Amino acid sequence: MFPRVRALGQWLALGSVVGVVCGGASALFLFLLDEATHWRLQHEFVVYLLPVAGLVIGALYGKWGASIRAGNNLVIDTVHEGDARLPLRMAPMVLVGTVLTHLFGGSAGREGTAVQMGASLADAVAHRFRVSPSTRRELLAAGIAGGFGSVFGTPIAGTVFGLEVICVGRMSYEALVPALVAAVVGDLVTRALGIHHSVYPVPEALALSPGVIGKWLVFGVAMAVAAVVFVEGVHFIKKRLEKALPALALRMALGGVGVVGLWQLVGTSDYLGLGVPMIQRAFVDPDLPPEAFALKLLFTAVTLGAGFLGGEVTPLFFVGAALGNVLGRLLGLPLELAAGVGLAALFGAAANTPLALSLMAVELLGANVLPHVVIVTVTAYLLTGQRGIYPAQRIARLKH
Amino acid sequence: MFPRVRALGQWLALGSVVGVVCGGASALFLFLLDEATHWRLQHEFVVYLLPVAGLVIGALYGKWGASIRAGNNLVIDTVHEGDARLPLRMAPMVLVGTVLTHLFGGSAGREGTAVQMGASLADAVAHRFRVSPSTRRELLAAGIAGGFGSVFGTPIAGTVFGLEVICVGRMSYEALVPALVAAVVGDLVTRALGIHHSVYPVPEALALSPGVIGKWLVFGVAMAVAAVVFVEGVHFIKKRLEKALPALALRMALGGVGVVGLWQLVGTSDYLGLGVPMIQRAFVDPDLPPEAFALKLLFTAVTLGAGFLGGEVTPLFFVGAALGNVLGRLLGLPLELAAGVGLAALFGAAANTPLALSLMAVELLGANVLPHVVIVTVTAYLLTGQRGIYPAQRIARLKH
Repeated sequence: MFPRVRALGQWLALGSVVGVVCGGASALFLFLLDEATHWRLQHEFVVYLLPVAGLVIGALYGKWGASIRAGNNLVIDTVHEGDARLPLRMAPMVLVGTVLTHLFGGSAGREGTAVQMGASLADAVAHRFRVSPSTRRELLAAGIAGGFGSVFGTPIAGTVFGLEVICVGRMSYEALVPALVAAVVGDLVTRALGIHHSVYPVPEALALSPGVIGKWLVFGVAMAVAAVVFVEGVHFIKKRLEKALPALALRMALGGVGVVGLWQLVGTSDYLGLGVPMIQRAFVDPDLPPEAFALKLLFTAVTLGAGFLGGEVTPLFFVGAALGNVLGRLLGLPLELAAGVGLAALFGAAANTPLALSLMAVELLGANVLPHVVIVTVTAYLLTGQRGIYPAQRIARLKH
Repeated sequence: MFPRVRALGQWLALGSVVGVVCGGASALFLFLLDEATHWRLQHEFVVYLLPVAGLVIGALYGKWGASIRAGNNLVIDTVHEGDARLPLRMAPMVLVGTVLTHLFGGSAGREGTAVQMGASLADAVAHRFRVSPSTRRELLAAGIAGGFGSVFGTPIAGTVFGLEVICVGRMSYEALVPALVAAVVGDLVTRALGIHHSVYPVPEALALSPGVIGKWLVFGVAMAVAAVVFVEGVHFIKKRLEKALPALALRMALGGVGVVGLWQLVGTSDYLGLGVPMIQRAFVDPDLPPEAFALKLLFTAVTLGAGFLGGEVTPLFFVGAALGNVLGRLLGLPLELAAGVGLAALFGAAANTPLALSLMAVELLGANVLPHVVIVTVTAYLLTGQRGIYPAQRIARLKH
C-alpha cells in the first residue's frame, strides 16, 4: 500500500497547487465578468462598440495570440500529444478577451476561458516542478477539471469533464485523483474568495413511466438537432468569414456588427452576454417566447463564429433550458424539470460529455433530475454523431 | 443522422428485451428473497441447517455448475473474450442458490445473482436474435446493467456499473445506450411487478472545508483498509478451504458450520442475511456497536469464501455504513452522511467502480452526498490497488 499512499500524497500536493491557481483565476475572472456585465447593463450604449472591441481583441490575438488561437482544441491536443508547453500568456489573454467580449455584449460563455486558464496554469506548475511527461498530461487534465469545476461551482462535474472531454467514447481514469483534487480545491478557493454562483430552481421528482420515456426520447431528438445546428452553424460562420476576411480583427469587427444588428432587430438585450436571468426564467415562465432558444443560438453562433472569446456552456444552458421550456409545454412535462434537463443535455451532447453534464445537473439542480437527464443527454449524445464543439477530441470509437 | 437513428432504434428494441427479462428475473428474485428472509426471521432454527443447505447447493453446483462456478468473473471474461455462450442455466441456478443461502441465514448480497441472471439472459437474447459478436458483447454489458439497476432500483448506477466493472481504470462507452435502456426498462419492470426497494435516510447538506476534506481522507483510508481486508479475507478463506477440502459440497457445509458458530458466538441474528435493518440503523443510531462492521465483514467473508451464492453489495453496504457510523462519531461528521458515504464507498473501492457507486449514492440518498462520497470513494479506490472482488477485471492501467 505504501507506493499508493505516496501517489496519493503527490496528487494531493500537486493537485492542490493546480486547484489553488485555477480557483484564484476563476474567482478573478468571475469577479471581472460580474463587474463587466453590471456595467454593460447600466450603460447599454457600449454594445454599439462591440465591433470596436472585436477590432481590439482581434489585433491583440493577431499580434500575440497566433499560438493560442486554437483555445480548448490546443489544450486537448496537448493532453494527447504532450508536445510544446502551453504558453502561459494564454491565461491573461483569454481572460481579457472574454471580459471584453462580455463588457460589450457578446453572447458567449465561460468554460472555454476557465479551461484555457486552468490548463495553461497547470502546465506552468508541471514545468515548475519538472514532472514526468505522463504526470504532466495528468496535471493538464487536472487544470481542465480545476478550471471547469471552480468557474461553475460544480467540482464533481469538473472532475469528470476533465477526463471525459479528451476522447469521444472512452474515459480513462489516469487523471482521476489529480482532477478531483484540483476541482475540489479550486471550487473551495473560488468560494473562499467571495464568489457566489448562479442558483437555479430545484425540480420536483417525476416518476418514470413508458409514456414519460417516450416524451424524453422526442426531447432528446430535439436537443440533438439543436446541438448539430449549433456546432455546424459556428463552424459554417467561422469558415465563411475566414475565407472572406483573412484578418482576425476585421472578422471580429464584422461579427460585432452582426451581433449589434441582431440586437437592434430583436429589440431586447435578453440575448447578450451570459443570459443567466433568462435561464432562470426558463424554469418557471410558461410564457417564455418560443423563439428564445433559436435567437440565443443565433447570437452565440455569430459571436463565437466571428472569433470572440469565452465558451459555450452558459449560452448552451440558455438554449437548452429555453428549448426545454418549449418542449415541456408541448409534451406536457413539468416546466422546471424540462428546463433543467434541457440545460444540461444540450451542452452534454454538443461537447460529447454526457456523464459530466448529467453530474453537473445533479450538482446544480438536485437528484430529482435523475434518471431523466441521463436519458435525454445520452440520446442526444448518440444522435449528434462524431461532431462536437471541440474538433480536437479523439474518436475512441464510433458511437454506433 | 439516419444510421444513428437506426442504431438508436436497434438499441431501444434489443435493450428493452434485455431490460424486460432482467427486470422480471430481478422481481422474482427479490420476491423470493423477501419471502425467504421473512420465513427465516420467524423460524430462526433453520439457521442450524445452513451446513445442510451448503451440502445441497454444493452438490447442485458440483453436478451441473462446473462451467458457471466462476460467476461474475465468468461474465466479465465473456465480455472481454467473447467466447463460449454463457449457459442459460446460470440464471435459475444462481437464483435458487442465493435464495437458499438467504433462507438459511448466510450473509451474502444480491448483485452477483442479478448480474449473472442478467448476463446469461442477455446472452440468450443475443443468441436468439443472432447479433454480431460486438453487439453481443454490448448486450452482455446491458445484461449486467439491467440486472444491477433493477435489483437495487438504481438504473443510472446500473448503467455505469455495466460499463465500469469490465476494466479497472478505463470506461468505454460502446455499450452506453443499450446499458441505459436495459437498466431503465429493467427497473420499470421490477417496480411494475410490485417490488419496493429498501429506503435509506436522506443526509442533510454539509459544506466542504479543508477540515472536512481532511476527515474524509482519514475516512477513505479506513474504507480502503476494510476493502483490502475483505477482498483478501474472502480470497484467503477460499484458497485455504479449497486446499483442505476439494469437494465444494463439503467446503460449503463447513462454511455453514462456521457461520452457525459465529452466530452462536455473537448471540444475535443481526449479521445473518442481507442485514438491511442494521444498515438503516447505522444512519441514525449513535450507539451502534463499534464492532458491527467487523462482525458483518467476518460473517460475509466466511459465507462467500465457502462458496455460498449471492453477492457483495448489500453486506458491504452494511460494513461500510457501520464503519462510517463509527468513523463519523470519532471524526465528528454528521452520522447520516458518514453512514451514507461509507455505504457507497466500500463497495465502490472493493469492486473498482467509483463512479457507479457515487451515482448509486445519489440515487439512494440524494444529491447532498456529493461531493463527499466521490472524495472518499476515489481515495479508497486509489489505495486498494489492483485487487478487487472481481479478479477477472482487466487492468487498463495501474492506478498510480
